[in-house]
Amino acid sequence: MGQGYVATIFAWGLARLKKGLIDPWGVPLAGVDFGVPIESLEVVASFDVDAAKVGRSLYEVARVYGLEPEPELKEVVVQPGLKLRSSPSFIKTLALDDEHPLEDARAKFEELLDDSRPDVFIDVTTTAKSKPLFTWEEVEKGIAEGSLPHSQVYAYLALERRGVAYVNAQPAHVACSPAFVDRAAERGSLVLGDDGATGATPLTVDIAEHLAERNRRVLSIAQFNIGGNADFLSLTEPERNLAKEETKSGFLENVLGYEPPHFIRPTGYLEPLGDKKFVAMHIQWVSFGGFVDELVVNMRINDSPALAGYLVDLSRLAYASLRTGVYGTVPEINLFYMKRPGPHGTRHKAKILAYRDLLSFVERLREARGLPAREAVTRARASSP
Amino acid sequence: MGQGYVATIFAWGLARLKKGLIDPWGVPLAGVDFGVPIESLEVVASFDVDAAKVGRSLYEVARVYGLEPEPELKEVVVQPGLKLRSSPSFIKTLALDDEHPLEDARAKFEELLDDSRPDVFIDVTTTAKSKPLFTWEEVEKGIAEGSLPHSQVYAYLALERRGVAYVNAQPAHVACSPAFVDRAAERGSLVLGDDGATGATPLTVDIAEHLAERNRRVLSIAQFNIGGNADFLSLTEPERNLAKEETKSGFLENVLGYEPPHFIRPTGYLEPLGDKKFVAMHIQWVSFGGFVDELVVNMRINDSPALAGYLVDLSRLAYASLRTGVYGTVPEINLFYMKRPGPHGTRHKAKILAYRDLLSFVERLREARGLPAREAVTRARASSP
Amino acid sequence: MGQGYVATIFAWGLARLKKGLIDPWGVPLAGVDFGVPIESLEVVASFDVDAAKVGRSLYEVARVYGLEPEPELKEVVVQPGLKLRSSPSFIKTLALDDEHPLEDARAKFEELLDDSRPDVFIDVTTTAKSKPLFTWEEVEKGIAEGSLPHSQVYAYLALERRGVAYVNAQPAHVACSPAFVDRAAERGSLVLGDDGATGATPLTVDIAEHLAERNRRVLSIAQFNIGGNADFLSLTEPERNLAKEETKSGFLENVLGYEPPHFIRPTGYLEPLGDKKFVAMHIQWVSFGGFVDELVVNMRINDSPALAGYLVDLSRLAYASLRTGVYGTVPEINLFYMKRPGPHGTRHKAKILAYRDLLSFVERLREARGLPAREAVTRARASSP
Amino acid sequence: MGQGYVATIFAWGLARLKKGLIDPWGVPLAGVDFGVPIESLEVVASFDVDAAKVGRSLYEVARVYGLEPEPELKEVVVQPGLKLRSSPSFIKTLALDDEHPLEDARAKFEELLDDSRPDVFIDVTTTAKSKPLFTWEEVEKGIAEGSLPHSQVYAYLALERRGVAYVNAQPAHVACSPAFVDRAAERGSLVLGDDGATGATPLTVDIAEHLAERNRRVLSIAQFNIGGNADFLSLTEPERNLAKEETKSGFLENVLGYEPPHFIRPTGYLEPLGDKKFVAMHIQWVSFGGFVDELVVNMRINDSPALAGYLVDLSRLAYASLRTGVYGTVPEINLFYMKRPGPHGTRHKAKILAYRDLLSFVERLREARGLPAREAVTRARASSP
Repeated sequence: MGQGYVATIFAWGLARLKKGLIDPWGVPLAGVDFGVPIESLEVVASFDVDAAKVGRSLYEVARVYGLEPEPELKEVVVQPGLKLRSSPSFIKTLALDDEHPLEDARAKFEELLDDSRPDVFIDVTTTAKSKPLFTWEEVEKGIAEGSLPHSQVYAYLALERRGVAYVNAQPAHVACSPAFVDRAAERGSLVLGDDGATGATPLTVDIAEHLAERNRRVLSIAQFNIGGNADFLSLTEPERNLAKEETKSGFLENVLGYEPPHFIRPTGYLEPLGDKKFVAMHIQWVSFGGFVDELVVNMRINDSPALAGYLVDLSRLAYASLRTGVYGTVPEINLFYMKRPGPHGTRHKAKILAYRDLLSFVERLREARGLPAREAVTRARASSP
Repeated sequence: MGQGYVATIFAWGLARLKKGLIDPWGVPLAGVDFGVPIESLEVVASFDVDAAKVGRSLYEVARVYGLEPEPELKEVVVQPGLKLRSSPSFIKTLALDDEHPLEDARAKFEELLDDSRPDVFIDVTTTAKSKPLFTWEEVEKGIAEGSLPHSQVYAYLALERRGVAYVNAQPAHVACSPAFVDRAAERGSLVLGDDGATGATPLTVDIAEHLAERNRRVLSIAQFNIGGNADFLSLTEPERNLAKEETKSGFLENVLGYEPPHFIRPTGYLEPLGDKKFVAMHIQWVSFGGFVDELVVNMRINDSPALAGYLVDLSRLAYASLRTGVYGTVPEINLFYMKRPGPHGTRHKAKILAYRDLLSFVERLREARGLPAREAVTRARASSP
Repeated sequence: MGQGYVATIFAWGLARLKKGLIDPWGVPLAGVDFGVPIESLEVVASFDVDAAKVGRSLYEVARVYGLEPEPELKEVVVQPGLKLRSSPSFIKTLALDDEHPLEDARAKFEELLDDSRPDVFIDVTTTAKSKPLFTWEEVEKGIAEGSLPHSQVYAYLALERRGVAYVNAQPAHVACSPAFVDRAAERGSLVLGDDGATGATPLTVDIAEHLAERNRRVLSIAQFNIGGNADFLSLTEPERNLAKEETKSGFLENVLGYEPPHFIRPTGYLEPLGDKKFVAMHIQWVSFGGFVDELVVNMRINDSPALAGYLVDLSRLAYASLRTGVYGTVPEINLFYMKRPGPHGTRHKAKILAYRDLLSFVERLREARGLPAREAVTRARASSP
Repeated sequence: MGQGYVATIFAWGLARLKKGLIDPWGVPLAGVDFGVPIESLEVVASFDVDAAKVGRSLYEVARVYGLEPEPELKEVVVQPGLKLRSSPSFIKTLALDDEHPLEDARAKFEELLDDSRPDVFIDVTTTAKSKPLFTWEEVEKGIAEGSLPHSQVYAYLALERRGVAYVNAQPAHVACSPAFVDRAAERGSLVLGDDGATGATPLTVDIAEHLAERNRRVLSIAQFNIGGNADFLSLTEPERNLAKEETKSGFLENVLGYEPPHFIRPTGYLEPLGDKKFVAMHIQWVSFGGFVDELVVNMRINDSPALAGYLVDLSRLAYASLRTGVYGTVPEINLFYMKRPGPHGTRHKAKILAYRDLLSFVERLREARGLPAREAVTRARASSP
């Protein structure tokens, strides 16, 4: 869902990985075998509402993004999705609901799903403002009214099917909506999310843990993000910006034990930075004896590849979970890969600690799938050539 | 051992902590009760070889460093130590071995220890070059020849006593010398070390772990440190610089699974920076699809307070361990607090993970001391007022 | 006008300078004699609309700001000013127009001026949105309607007098309003402004010149500012933020010859940073052969002292200009000290070049005042003790 | 002289510029016409002592460096130069003096020059330690003894010819040796140098000027440089490092009026950084009232392209000067383009000011060559397409 740069890097990189043209750097569990090898992944369908993409193959889209794609990408063509009210205003749309009533459009969308029959849905659509949904009645009311943002509508439609996983890598409340998690649990499905934790935020979580363990009192945190991709462009719309800010700073109280004054939010759009965003962060704290230390972090991060690498794992983990009978959601997965880990109310923890829990969960997957017991899952790092 | 700025901040801050004048920020386990409260710590003796310090009270020394000390610091007077061959050339010494044969000087030093009868020795002397010592014969030969650096000589003299702990917070091989660890084990004593992990190195370890968990391939790490305290001045002597460099970059292979090209070392002395060193670090890595990301960290860190805060914990942990019958060394303590954790050959791990192991060790201490079982040791952060 | 932190640092520092308690660091022309020594400056009156300040002496205000003031500051008491519609909403006011019609309030204000008879007015009030005023009719209409922001009203009232200087150190259009400059020229008065160029912007101007001279093609500039003083708090109100942004980025086209994509604006308020703001800047450019270079600048800048140091010079230069018969405005002064140099339409130039022109202007002042000719004005730096 | 990466980028880029394939970014005076257009430049010969380069065409060398060269580069083949005692130890040499007495080698070199008859020599050989040479007797003695480093020997041999220019872009004392300048003046020749001012140093000069003009008292400057090209590799040899450090920090006293404590030097070699070095700089100063500000600069700079762009100008300026009868050396050129501007004893000045003097010099060149008078030389920036 959403054939932007993330989805395109994912499809482009996956094709190259499967042919051994690149190493699996950036795929956290690349070196861990839990029965779903990278080679088994397949992109079966793509949806978008951008008139410049719908009807084009992923091969063509990849070339527009300046990538040199494998010929396999010609096999998947972008199909029209649902724009609803939440698609960004700067896009010229070609969507199922452009000229048809929403109900017809949803029906058409479900037909398209019947054709491709995906096991795992990946939501990398544009950030949209949303609220958590607590009951299925709320969901159905929102669907009927057309008031839900696109991610929640797509999640609803996905969960109309059985035995599927919905991986929500953007900030809308999906895995943090109890209604979706409960529905998934009932129907042998799974939702994972919300909002992929790449870039500065997960590093900040671990730095916060690092400081907390030394009992350093954080006085303030300022974190700026600026980039030139469509995501940053969409965040210039204030509602989206607020939605993003919420997922970026939620961890402080949980990790530090208190909420220090902070300013953490996507800050602006600057086209020449492209997908390689610039991050600046300032943290100051009290050390022993009342002395004040300062830390400044500056990063240039390729935003979309970082998330695309996670999606390789999330697809595999989602599929493996389903096959192992794990339904609803999996906090061990969400806590490592996501900025606002579901289910609703989950306490944040340092990513380095969440990784240990993730490895334990993977170990349980391995056992359930009859893979030989191992003292500890070998880290992906052991996969280096 | 070594009444420099670290030891002085320690004594000054401890006195203020005991009177409730400051909060215990920078003391990692301030909020954890394992039977040795901060209030129970007492500075009973101090040794140095700097003619400007010997014979002065800690109160006077603190004032020279620009601190406003508590009157209690008048009670401890700096006594002359052993300069040996390893004291820095820029110090005018007043040492026991200035005019007496080394053997007599050592005997005199032991007499001074008989007076103060410390439970815990803290070594915050100047960085010295050293080699690990594997057998007690090697130690005795080095002592006889006068070829060992001051830290190893002090450790030898401390271990002549029984039931004591030697906390080595500088880079010499003490806890990484099997000879000292074995001797301590035999005599109901303990050595902890080596080289307090404050400043940029432990943060770099955790950042390295953070990258490794995402399977990002580190291409290079450059880390510069410059400061204006006596430690940086001493590191302008090439042998000391090499000794320091060794403890700063040892973790890479263990944490990443490979050793990326790196330049990690104390870089220079710049007097106006004082004790608040400037750190600059550059890391670049390969992300998914072959894209290269960059991270730059700049810090201003008060070097000595950071270590002084650790010493509060290390004193308490050392004493609690001894009273619980833990002899030799304690890797769980060393792995969190030290740059080159003993015993010799210990594999490094991320500090955030080492902290968990430390908490488990402390839980065992609590049990051994009959403190009520707790689900998990509350983090120091819970101690915030 | 505006007894905030800048005005308080100015009064506090001036008193200390006059007694030789501090060196004149931060006063650009401290070492240049043009007939108005620092010692001759005197603070004769102060106006504010903050109920917490009106009626208090500068001594008391300085103590609230945590400064240790000289007793002379007791002699000046903050008087009530005009709040109009442009004072920030977060201030509890005590102003002349709180309960009286604007016309009466203005008359009362003029009475207060009759008492103190200032030669030089310094405007360091809160940032307000404004438009340039081109004719005196516009000014009078705005005054009558009560639609002008406080700075323009104060400037109007100051220019009702003769032989005075109005130094506008904030972003309102005063020296960039032709109406004020013309009026000043007619009445033997002077306006200088607008918006003191301290902090990151003047450095960015000089870095831009540095790049332009090497014919490096700037691809983008991002600059973030965050601080915890009242100025940053006021900039959280969107209209003020826009007013500030305008003066921060006006120089690019003039200095580079083209306007690169940029994001340059005050970014947020973070109380614990206090007056020492944090600045982060990223610039990338094309070098020879198409290679792309990157520059990141991070600063911690004491915002108010930097401007207070300028005010020492601006007071002296304003007074010397008036006495030499220089009326209207002085672009040579404005181009060095101001972010949006008046008069309206003035082209920006590198600050290092503007400094040369400033020295030439000062040389002309010297000549006019009969000071001995010098080959070149000695730089302030020669004044170091 | 020295077919390293700088010389190769220069030849590669020049060929592309002449064909209009790239814009002249990074060539400071690209937009200024003084009678020697970029198109008129021609590479006629190349010398090196690296066995891997001698005998290969520039086309082949460019490909080894990963550049896509124009076919014209096949026309110039690298010829063997003189290794002397100063070539770096890590190079396998193929030099004229490998197996022949130095005198014969020099004679052979002069023969090779007779073939190519260059107007302008460009020295981009490896950094070598040197002393300034004051008399021609000193030069001849050093030549006879074989004690001079390669740059001074090449300069000597170049000045055996008449009407030539020797542009020394590395740190050896050539333009700062009065003996060479005097010799050039006598023989209708020219020497320019020493050490191209690219990267962090010229920016630091301008930042220092910026601070000095505001009378801010610089407390300390730390500047680190690390890179992965052959220049940084050669600087791991201590003598070369000292030679480089000298040219990097010479400006402080001249620009600031005092020499603040500083640590400015090339710091290390880290291969994966390649030619794009990493620079970190920390400056702190006293502002008005005694407040201390801090500035941190981090850069990623493509080292060789920056210098190659300068060489385009320096070749043109050298040739234009010769044709206009300007002999000896030209401080106006050196002060802008060089780190240690000749002649010996020249006071440094801010680069932004030096640029103005350079433009005036160019204006004189224009007049001498009968180009129409212009109000001011248009800046290179006007050349943007």
